[in-house]
Amino acid sequence: MTETLAQGAVIGILGGGQLGRMLSVAASRLGFKTHIFEPGANPPAADVAHAVTTAAYEDEAALRAFAASVDVITYEFENVPTSALDLLETLKPIRPNRRALAISQDRLREKAFLSDLGLSTAPYAAVDDSIDLAEAIAEIGCPAILKTRRFGYDGKGQAVIRAPEEGEAALASLSGAPAVYEGFVDFQSEISVIGARGLDGAIACFDPGQNVHSNGILHTTTVPATISPSQRTDAVLIAAKILNKLDYVGVIGVELFVTKDALIVNEFAPRVHNSGHWTQAGCAVDQFEQHIRAITGWPLGDGSRHADVEMENLIGDDMDRVPELASKPRTQIHLYGKAEVKPGRKMGHINRIL
Amino acid sequence: MTETLAQGAVIGILGGGQLGRMLSVAASRLGFKTHIFEPGANPPAADVAHAVTTAAYEDEAALRAFAASVDVITYEFENVPTSALDLLETLKPIRPNRRALAISQDRLREKAFLSDLGLSTAPYAAVDDSIDLAEAIAEIGCPAILKTRRFGYDGKGQAVIRAPEEGEAALASLSGAPAVYEGFVDFQSEISVIGARGLDGAIACFDPGQNVHSNGILHTTTVPATISPSQRTDAVLIAAKILNKLDYVGVIGVELFVTKDALIVNEFAPRVHNSGHWTQAGCAVDQFEQHIRAITGWPLGDGSRHADVEMENLIGDDMDRVPELASKPRTQIHLYGKAEVKPGRKMGHINRIL
Repeated sequence: MTETLAQGAVIGILGGGQLGRMLSVAASRLGFKTHIFEPGANPPAADVAHAVTTAAYEDEAALRAFAASVDVITYEFENVPTSALDLLETLKPIRPNRRALAISQDRLREKAFLSDLGLSTAPYAAVDDSIDLAEAIAEIGCPAILKTRRFGYDGKGQAVIRAPEEGEAALASLSGAPAVYEGFVDFQSEISVIGARGLDGAIACFDPGQNVHSNGILHTTTVPATISPSQRTDAVLIAAKILNKLDYVGVIGVELFVTKDALIVNEFAPRVHNSGHWTQAGCAVDQFEQHIRAITGWPLGDGSRHADVEMENLIGDDMDRVPELASKPRTQIHLYGKAEVKPGRKMGHINRIL
Repeated sequence: MTETLAQGAVIGILGGGQLGRMLSVAASRLGFKTHIFEPGANPPAADVAHAVTTAAYEDEAALRAFAASVDVITYEFENVPTSALDLLETLKPIRPNRRALAISQDRLREKAFLSDLGLSTAPYAAVDDSIDLAEAIAEIGCPAILKTRRFGYDGKGQAVIRAPEEGEAALASLSGAPAVYEGFVDFQSEISVIGARGLDGAIACFDPGQNVHSNGILHTTTVPATISPSQRTDAVLIAAKILNKLDYVGVIGVELFVTKDALIVNEFAPRVHNSGHWTQAGCAVDQFEQHIRAITGWPLGDGSRHADVEMENLIGDDMDRVPELASKPRTQIHLYGKAEVKPGRKMGHINRIL
């Protein structure tokens, strides 16, 4: 038997962005309250949270007060400083666990973890300096991508190397941060599996979605993906393998490249994932509620897909399209309440029931 | 052209119960914040609101501060004291308007309004004293129900009169409150139409749902209702007639009795309605978002039904069933976060996709 949090219990969420916002809404459906910890002022999640702490991750007193007020801690982004987690984990359970977070925070550890599991990844090599890079280019070839090991997201902290002589400039652009050199994968499509593992070890995965990126940022996710039944099964088994190996509790997003011969794991994110937003329109229980169920000891819900859906991100001045989108049939709009529109900023998304 | 509130605008909601809670969640989807005004401590809506004022409806300073902080005012229950509305309407727009509220607050005015519109109602008569009651019983017969004109809900403020000699006791049980004597309607089924009218006058109605009550409280709503296509059309036209006549803005719940020969209007509620909760699972845009869209000047959304759904209320110790319900397939659970379970208290609901 696993412990189940009772109605009225408080879920602490590190990070107050749109994922925290939608987690908070899902928590309310199950009778839970949320407490958001976020350094920035007026975070999107604050509009729908029971409590908000505005403090730096280095503020030990604020972290202690936060932990004292909650029953379980989760996070909506994977770059939470280690020192904050070191303190918090002595005070309250953190779900998903530290190991999942540590591995996903480091592209090199992540690749090694996946390889050890027998899963396919892009060819890769660690790059700490020019000598490493020259060796990596010789081994893997060009074009390929140099990525910082840590703190990269939405295409940031990356440089494409098209020829060996571009290596030095790419390395310089990362300001000396430890990096990974990754070979390109000649893929037919990109898909992702949003998986969940409960406190009792049960696993449930949503139907894989097919992703299209634009300028390094997710543009659309469409379900069902155009993959074969066996690819669908394999994709879900890969996610399950990762979940079990990490003794994971919560929702995970696993991104896969589909090639002629294989499914290649690109990366995983130990949290609810942009490519799982379609579940809000296509399933009785969406990814946000599934995550809340997992970390509070509820049984996982029924995430089977009952509709075909296309999710489209609203980035920057896509917001100008909202008046037109508002009248579209079979269209759900989700805006994040961000005060300022900036280029590349995720402002909202729509789910179109197809 | 109608004014449309911009992202970040604040919606003031009078009442902090479960309807306010779910309105608040819907408001967040469209990028709005909510401010709840509620006399009771720790209202369910507070868990997902941007701001909460805990004050009495007689607290003029609190009402003024509330109005100053919001862009539009709505309400989640129809028994808001008149004095509070008198003040608030001088400060900010109240949607739906005062007239809709005043009529629905008074069963006698409501019946007269419906009759004037040419709509069928149960036979009724005003009862202020024993003489009125004797006349009403003589005219309408028994059995029938004596109901207070104001402040009744969920079967409260009502007494069934099965024979003339029960009249005096029934009248006494209402403590002298002005009342209405209503004849029973021999109905085949009860349905309700959740309708919406936008600031631009556009109307959209959800598919009628079929209601089953238990002990005077809604037990289940099922869509589609077992009515004929022409009854479905007539039901929607009745709701539209009411919406237009009231120059209404927002969502309305219209309860109808289906008899062999007619659709008889039982009552309407000038707000989102328990019998519309199924829309959370059956429509791209649910009743809560439809209400928010209407009062903020957005176009009404697509409320067409894409699934068959049964909504069931969780009343009192139905909460004991939650662990079992949590694992049911195709089942959405919505809990209201109420600390104390009481007999007859609405604690949550489930939407089963059929």
